[in-house]
Amino acid sequence: VDRIGFIGLGLMGGPMAANVAHAGYRLAVYNRTVSKTAPLRELGAEVVSSPREVAENSAVVITALTDGGAVLEVLDGDAGLLAGASDGMVLIDMSTTGPEAALAIGRAAAAHGVKLLEAPVVGSVGPAREGTLGILVGGEREVFEAQRDLLGTMGAPNHIFYMGPQGTGAAAKLCINLMVAAQMVSLAEALTLAAKSGVDVQQMAEVVRASGISSRFLALKSEKLLQGDYEAAFPLEHMHKDLGLVVRAADTAEAAIPATAVIHQLYTAARAQGYGSQDFAALYRLMTQMAGLDA
Amino acid sequence: VDRIGFIGLGLMGGPMAANVAHAGYRLAVYNRTVSKTAPLRELGAEVVSSPREVAENSAVVITALTDGGAVLEVLDGDAGLLAGASDGMVLIDMSTTGPEAALAIGRAAAAHGVKLLEAPVVGSVGPAREGTLGILVGGEREVFEAQRDLLGTMGAPNHIFYMGPQGTGAAAKLCINLMVAAQMVSLAEALTLAAKSGVDVQQMAEVVRASGISSRFLALKSEKLLQGDYEAAFPLEHMHKDLGLVVRAADTAEAAIPATAVIHQLYTAARAQGYGSQDFAALYRLMTQMAGLDA
Amino acid sequence: VDRIGFIGLGLMGGPMAANVAHAGYRLAVYNRTVSKTAPLRELGAEVVSSPREVAENSAVVITALTDGGAVLEVLDGDAGLLAGASDGMVLIDMSTTGPEAALAIGRAAAAHGVKLLEAPVVGSVGPAREGTLGILVGGEREVFEAQRDLLGTMGAPNHIFYMGPQGTGAAAKLCINLMVAAQMVSLAEALTLAAKSGVDVQQMAEVVRASGISSRFLALKSEKLLQGDYEAAFPLEHMHKDLGLVVRAADTAEAAIPATAVIHQLYTAARAQGYGSQDFAALYRLMTQMAGLDA
Amino acid sequence: VDRIGFIGLGLMGGPMAANVAHAGYRLAVYNRTVSKTAPLRELGAEVVSSPREVAENSAVVITALTDGGAVLEVLDGDAGLLAGASDGMVLIDMSTTGPEAALAIGRAAAAHGVKLLEAPVVGSVGPAREGTLGILVGGEREVFEAQRDLLGTMGAPNHIFYMGPQGTGAAAKLCINLMVAAQMVSLAEALTLAAKSGVDVQQMAEVVRASGISSRFLALKSEKLLQGDYEAAFPLEHMHKDLGLVVRAADTAEAAIPATAVIHQLYTAARAQGYGSQDFAALYRLMTQMAGLDA
Repeated sequence: VDRIGFIGLGLMGGPMAANVAHAGYRLAVYNRTVSKTAPLRELGAEVVSSPREVAENSAVVITALTDGGAVLEVLDGDAGLLAGASDGMVLIDMSTTGPEAALAIGRAAAAHGVKLLEAPVVGSVGPAREGTLGILVGGEREVFEAQRDLLGTMGAPNHIFYMGPQGTGAAAKLCINLMVAAQMVSLAEALTLAAKSGVDVQQMAEVVRASGISSRFLALKSEKLLQGDYEAAFPLEHMHKDLGLVVRAADTAEAAIPATAVIHQLYTAARAQGYGSQDFAALYRLMTQMAGLDA
Repeated sequence: VDRIGFIGLGLMGGPMAANVAHAGYRLAVYNRTVSKTAPLRELGAEVVSSPREVAENSAVVITALTDGGAVLEVLDGDAGLLAGASDGMVLIDMSTTGPEAALAIGRAAAAHGVKLLEAPVVGSVGPAREGTLGILVGGEREVFEAQRDLLGTMGAPNHIFYMGPQGTGAAAKLCINLMVAAQMVSLAEALTLAAKSGVDVQQMAEVVRASGISSRFLALKSEKLLQGDYEAAFPLEHMHKDLGLVVRAADTAEAAIPATAVIHQLYTAARAQGYGSQDFAALYRLMTQMAGLDA
Repeated sequence: VDRIGFIGLGLMGGPMAANVAHAGYRLAVYNRTVSKTAPLRELGAEVVSSPREVAENSAVVITALTDGGAVLEVLDGDAGLLAGASDGMVLIDMSTTGPEAALAIGRAAAAHGVKLLEAPVVGSVGPAREGTLGILVGGEREVFEAQRDLLGTMGAPNHIFYMGPQGTGAAAKLCINLMVAAQMVSLAEALTLAAKSGVDVQQMAEVVRASGISSRFLALKSEKLLQGDYEAAFPLEHMHKDLGLVVRAADTAEAAIPATAVIHQLYTAARAQGYGSQDFAALYRLMTQMAGLDA
Repeated sequence: VDRIGFIGLGLMGGPMAANVAHAGYRLAVYNRTVSKTAPLRELGAEVVSSPREVAENSAVVITALTDGGAVLEVLDGDAGLLAGASDGMVLIDMSTTGPEAALAIGRAAAAHGVKLLEAPVVGSVGPAREGTLGILVGGEREVFEAQRDLLGTMGAPNHIFYMGPQGTGAAAKLCINLMVAAQMVSLAEALTLAAKSGVDVQQMAEVVRASGISSRFLALKSEKLLQGDYEAAFPLEHMHKDLGLVVRAADTAEAAIPATAVIHQLYTAARAQGYGSQDFAALYRLMTQMAGLDA
């Protein structure tokens, strides 16, 4: 069996790598904070000490990092991934980077004969653990087809989508996050308006869950948020970062997205209140404050 | 059996009244445009020629009209509903009026000894026909309990919600419509951004439908809108009117709803393009135009 | 000399009436809170005890009230203005009411043979005292021309504008307030961004005042706001009310005003923080809070 | 006299360089499109063929380029500015780059012993010709003081502002452009609402010009825009680019600017309509279209 490299063992990357290991792949892993490699070592993965060593002797390397900047950093330099890459290696970047960075990463990879699949994921910690993430792939179709089985260890088979050439996977991921962010804001605005209109918000949430606009997401979040449970499944600062990427992508693509632009600013305000490390449902806290409910 | 009056046999009111008739209630109906009373006459309903006559000899009168102004008009004057109402009559107003108008209607009714239940509905033509609407009731709880069976002929039993005192049913309805309008706009912005980023929009819609934010609403509308099918299930001009009510309710309640405010303006722009009588999914047409896709 | 009636002696109406008196007109005044009539009594005005008495024996009556609802209330009833009006009387309403209310007031007046000039003013307390207000008149041109001298006691001669038929004066006033509200918000956003970028805000305000976008308004407000002086020249709750009228007028006219819609919501949020009775420059307090500067 | 280098002879840079020459400085110029160097040659400037040659033998080099990317490109490489720079050289970058790029440029310069003054300008082509630009300087105060005379050939003496350390000049420039963009949008929204409310827009513009919110900018633009004169004093695509920088700077600084975010999107939509090379007053064309006035 070919060796698979994996770089980035955070909240998402950790369980994703574990699923690759569980599927029987031989794994070499690297993480800046070494302590996070322990669970993978227990699963039989080789722990190495640089991105370069990950790349050496791996046919495929997966990255799951914070943003495009972090990916470019991992690629670069003497100890970097590209320094250890052999011609024809495949890089699967599962970070949310945006199309601009995806293209830059693709160019850097191509200069070393490495082929990039951008493959950002849809879903948070739960699906990452269960191996049922959605995966949105951009890059060459043949390269994608050859990696479908590997991707299938992390994602639900019918939720692995080939979106088109380089950049389209990254763009599609941003489009989904745009909608996730909007569903949260509209829930927060609706519950705030309800509260200030004398409607019981618990009952209001029941109505939402019973309606045709309800989603698994809304059902879950409406419950958490009314319990004041803001433990981060997806930290607000990550959603804020992603919305910044959405706005930039729309700028480049010349697509006007006025509602999303305002929504982005609300997350900025929530982050400025210090809610960055809470779940992005903490947007509700901002809305109630703006309505004077905490005053 | 007591006679039930029904005023307003439009797109929604027609099938709603039919369901009351099917359930075996004796019905007296009135509609400004007389031709629309024919299907009810066939179901055995008595067709009368003024709101006053509807009220005379009815213990309960249901109204399903365009807006609060239309309801107040129907109540008023010599031929008006209140002129024919006996003390203790119950008025169930199922129009989307907003809390301000609901309170005004309640005051007008009370001055004639009539008790108001505001009972706006959630759902469009389909559920109206099937008798599976959501119903959000504001008013006195005892009055509501006494009418639960009647409401159950039009709504799904577990989707009939008592929201609280006068005004809260109307407010809750606006909160739902706020979320419906937002889901449409975020879908439209996402698909437009996808299109301008080189992503195939059909594939993008698949991803949306497979994700945790998918809803019955999004599944249905994403399909219609990509087929260019804008036949009105809920006309854009009605959504625009409702969003105007949302913004006014938020103004009165001192709840800031910045995202919704922008969304309201997008529906204004769509209406100004002449899409008012199309389904409100035609918002997508505006977004693609703003992105220069039709130019 | 014909007697002039004046109803509404508040922050603006008081000094406006005084200027009419100073110009030598015989004046009859009414105010709900009687104490506010004292300065006018000293100037020789007759103080009467109902709107009706103001109208009786007056050829022209001026109203300067909070909003359209207040004007309609003053017109109505046995002790109301219209009960005392003679055929051909001219009503000059200088309140900010919006076009919808202006038309309703015009209809009510016409039903009693009274001709309405809507004549909302531009400028705050200072110009009201100096008699240099801008005045935006809607109504019949001949009626306006006949009242130009009277209006000239309150407004600067070259700042009295005839805007067109009923409703256009009210609409034009809203358009100006839209721009005033926006200048305040953009100043607040600019200073907040400057502050959080490490720029000295006093210096930033200097730059604004030196630039081509500077206005008398910006020069004054930028100074007040950086001194933390929020004494109300124009209370925030009035600006908030006016923006509500702007949004409604735009809704009716089918004009999309997305930036203004968001700005309206920011004033809502500022009001919900309890800044309603401060100057509308207190919008800056909201923006700094949203940026976490007070946290 | 020390030789001054000048790179970038576009719409703004051309007349700015000419003013430096007129003041008697010895000048070496470079421009990618050589034909634009002709007017400077006539004024006695030496025309060289690379940024490197500009730097060689110059004590100070001024850049006036499209954006931060263009500046970094000019600095870089064998023929780049930094390759020819001597230790202690001063780079005055007068482009609008944003604080992020200003800091990157500063770091690149420092690595070659070059000191950066970022000095973006306020004002368009007219003031560039007259040498009356506003100049907002960020960098070391002593470096700035030593260049005050040189800057004074391009800017009005009392409009040259020292804003603070690296990045603050760039940030301050963005704050001004935020306000310029907002004044244009609020004018466009006001005139559109006026038009759709039956108000004569020419008369409405008169009222704006007579009011306390009028500015030199509004006086000029309101005239141009109603004449349909969209010849570019400042192209819409440049304003759009600058607003992109504003939104990014606000993102980084964690300052919420909801109104500006919407305004940014309106410029995106205007650009997507093909108005990028027209004056940014063409935003008015978008607003009237959104209101259905051109339909």
